[in-house]
Amino acid sequence: MENAVLITIGDEILSGNTVDTNSNFIATELKNIGIKVSQIFTISDEIETIKKTIELAFETGNLIITTGGLGPTRDDKTKKAIAEFFNDEIALDEATFNHLKNYMERRGRLEILERNREQAFVPTKSTVFQNHFGTAPCMMMEQDGKLLFSLPGVPYEVKPLIKDQIVPFLQEKFNLNYISTRIVSVVGIPESILADTIEPWELALPENLSLSYLPIGTRVKLRLTGSGDNEAVLQQELENEIQKLLPLIKDNVIATSEDKIEKILAEILTERKLTISTAESCTGGELAKMITSVSGSSKYYLGGMVAYATEKKIEILKVKKETVDTFTVVSEQVASEMAEGCQQLFRTDISLSTTGVAGPGKGEDGKDIGTVFYTIRVNDKEITSKLYMPHLERLDFMDFVSQKIIQDLVGILINN
Amino acid sequence: MENAVLITIGDEILSGNTVDTNSNFIATELKNIGIKVSQIFTISDEIETIKKTIELAFETGNLIITTGGLGPTRDDKTKKAIAEFFNDEIALDEATFNHLKNYMERRGRLEILERNREQAFVPTKSTVFQNHFGTAPCMMMEQDGKLLFSLPGVPYEVKPLIKDQIVPFLQEKFNLNYISTRIVSVVGIPESILADTIEPWELALPENLSLSYLPIGTRVKLRLTGSGDNEAVLQQELENEIQKLLPLIKDNVIATSEDKIEKILAEILTERKLTISTAESCTGGELAKMITSVSGSSKYYLGGMVAYATEKKIEILKVKKETVDTFTVVSEQVASEMAEGCQQLFRTDISLSTTGVAGPGKGEDGKDIGTVFYTIRVNDKEITSKLYMPHLERLDFMDFVSQKIIQDLVGILINN
Repeated sequence: MENAVLITIGDEILSGNTVDTNSNFIATELKNIGIKVSQIFTISDEIETIKKTIELAFETGNLIITTGGLGPTRDDKTKKAIAEFFNDEIALDEATFNHLKNYMERRGRLEILERNREQAFVPTKSTVFQNHFGTAPCMMMEQDGKLLFSLPGVPYEVKPLIKDQIVPFLQEKFNLNYISTRIVSVVGIPESILADTIEPWELALPENLSLSYLPIGTRVKLRLTGSGDNEAVLQQELENEIQKLLPLIKDNVIATSEDKIEKILAEILTERKLTISTAESCTGGELAKMITSVSGSSKYYLGGMVAYATEKKIEILKVKKETVDTFTVVSEQVASEMAEGCQQLFRTDISLSTTGVAGPGKGEDGKDIGTVFYTIRVNDKEITSKLYMPHLERLDFMDFVSQKIIQDLVGILINN
Repeated sequence: MENAVLITIGDEILSGNTVDTNSNFIATELKNIGIKVSQIFTISDEIETIKKTIELAFETGNLIITTGGLGPTRDDKTKKAIAEFFNDEIALDEATFNHLKNYMERRGRLEILERNREQAFVPTKSTVFQNHFGTAPCMMMEQDGKLLFSLPGVPYEVKPLIKDQIVPFLQEKFNLNYISTRIVSVVGIPESILADTIEPWELALPENLSLSYLPIGTRVKLRLTGSGDNEAVLQQELENEIQKLLPLIKDNVIATSEDKIEKILAEILTERKLTISTAESCTGGELAKMITSVSGSSKYYLGGMVAYATEKKIEILKVKKETVDTFTVVSEQVASEMAEGCQQLFRTDISLSTTGVAGPGKGEDGKDIGTVFYTIRVNDKEITSKLYMPHLERLDFMDFVSQKIIQDLVGILINN
């Protein structure tokens, strides 16, 4: 199996200003074609550091992908470092310059600055993959059977370069082992008890299969990964092991195919032709966003309401003023009335509601930060639950609560 | 200045299953107390790799923070590697075991499994920082003036450990240089032209200040970072440089303090006592979520509507059926009527609307993927714009469009 090392270059990651999402994307795409990422280095944009890290990376892997450090500004030094590492020089590449000129002209920039022209300078030994969504080209260097790709750092530019150009190139170049993964989603069992339960099965796995535990909120994803030179044989091996695993934890499994809970929900809703709507307070749109992040969600998601102000809960979702006065706005009763109002407003089979305080800062009724009541309403039945997560940051809270609600809903739908 | 290296341990990052958000959080927290992160290593959970990486990291920095690899499952080997690296043994720590027992009992788990008990085994030379939100303790090793902290990988556990325990510990332990940052947000000017415009100023910066460019969507954040032993002097130095910079790019600056566009908006809306609401189609709740992600947003955000289905746009937002029939649902006219309906529904000063196709998969009316019309309505004036971003993935599209709308709104509010 080919072995890749990713190098992320740029102070914006090290300083905490930007989350590195490129590595995640690239690792996933490489995994799909059977290339394993063995290390990721995140380093600053300094020539010596870049050169030293390339050297180190080639000790571990035969494929390096760098992102970042190729912009038109003064703080980008990657290209120079790469040329020096490969004992090469930088020179203007005509094809790249023409591509750049066209790219800029199409965007109405008729004057090419010296700074932009510099972007068409590449190491003379490099193969250029043109960037259709930005001004920095992608360069490939090859030496002694080892490959280095240097990409810009902007995720919108990285994704098409990897998907449309680099992955097809690598597929053709290498004769790769096939890799495949199965994910089993498990709820309602702590990780340690789960591990004890399935230990005999795990220890008996064939050599080419391996298991990982990925806890996400209150769910654990068991990921079984295998490699082999025959795709069909490998798929069958994975399926056989999954069939041995399932009886051991059958009451706790909520999905054996899709990975993300919102995709698991999508499968169930589509199959059963059910519709859904949301009425959110403290999750502020995150629940809607999570549901609509799935392509095709317009088939079952009719719409939602973010009723942040109490009076909007009353006016639009028809929550009774007396209910708010008697029980406060963060209460089981208000969550329930929101779900009912939402179901009527959107006329859906299922409605979900949240009311709580995401913090920091106290809620309008003085209840503590981190409390949320949520209602899951399916036809004329509903369940209201409470979560208390005072230690979560605001965005984590919105995310955790939304995850948990969809997970609970999936559990309810599976058991009915 | 202290120099830190982060080591992220775990196959879930390398395989692309999980985005590493811990490094971002830790880097930000360390920066705030004047500790610079010089490298981040992401490695797999193998004893030899962990030991080798610790050695490498100590060549660069005197502070290492590892995350991950401490769970109760078979694939976690970090603790063993750390003990070996420091020539230490692992033994049961009574205080940690008692903490763990209490932690589990409070959660109703009265029986402690052998697997959980193992989590109370730590290197004998380590100092333990108890984890109040999980079962894996945080361990600190110290040798020759160098420190290593080993943390679990779950973000909800990492954040309080770093914020409440490790940062205060480091602040007390070291006598640190003060670091400060100013961010200037610039729009409507390409990065290369911006760089040319401010180059003379950048080259004349004092040695202890440095500039970075952080492009985000169509905005560029200029980040000026400085270090010094006197906080007040440093703040004044930064302010002086900002005052020299602003006249050079005055028409393009939208903020000189806050970093995130939603926080810039929060400042403006709070100061002017304006209220806002949202009506979303293709952004699916992301716009609402972005606005409500700011603590205190309930003061100005009254609520929003995710009108995914066309009939909900008509029923609830009072978009005219003729408008949809004549112009299709993805049109300037529908965006405009959605914004007006939203403003009336929520009775806010400002309303924002989106209608488009996030893809993949064609929209119901056959328009191409990546098209969005959005309206910004302030009192009785409105502007509708179009974006065409066919190359963006679904979630990136939702994020990009939401960023752009808030950015446009900020621009409009600043100029009025």
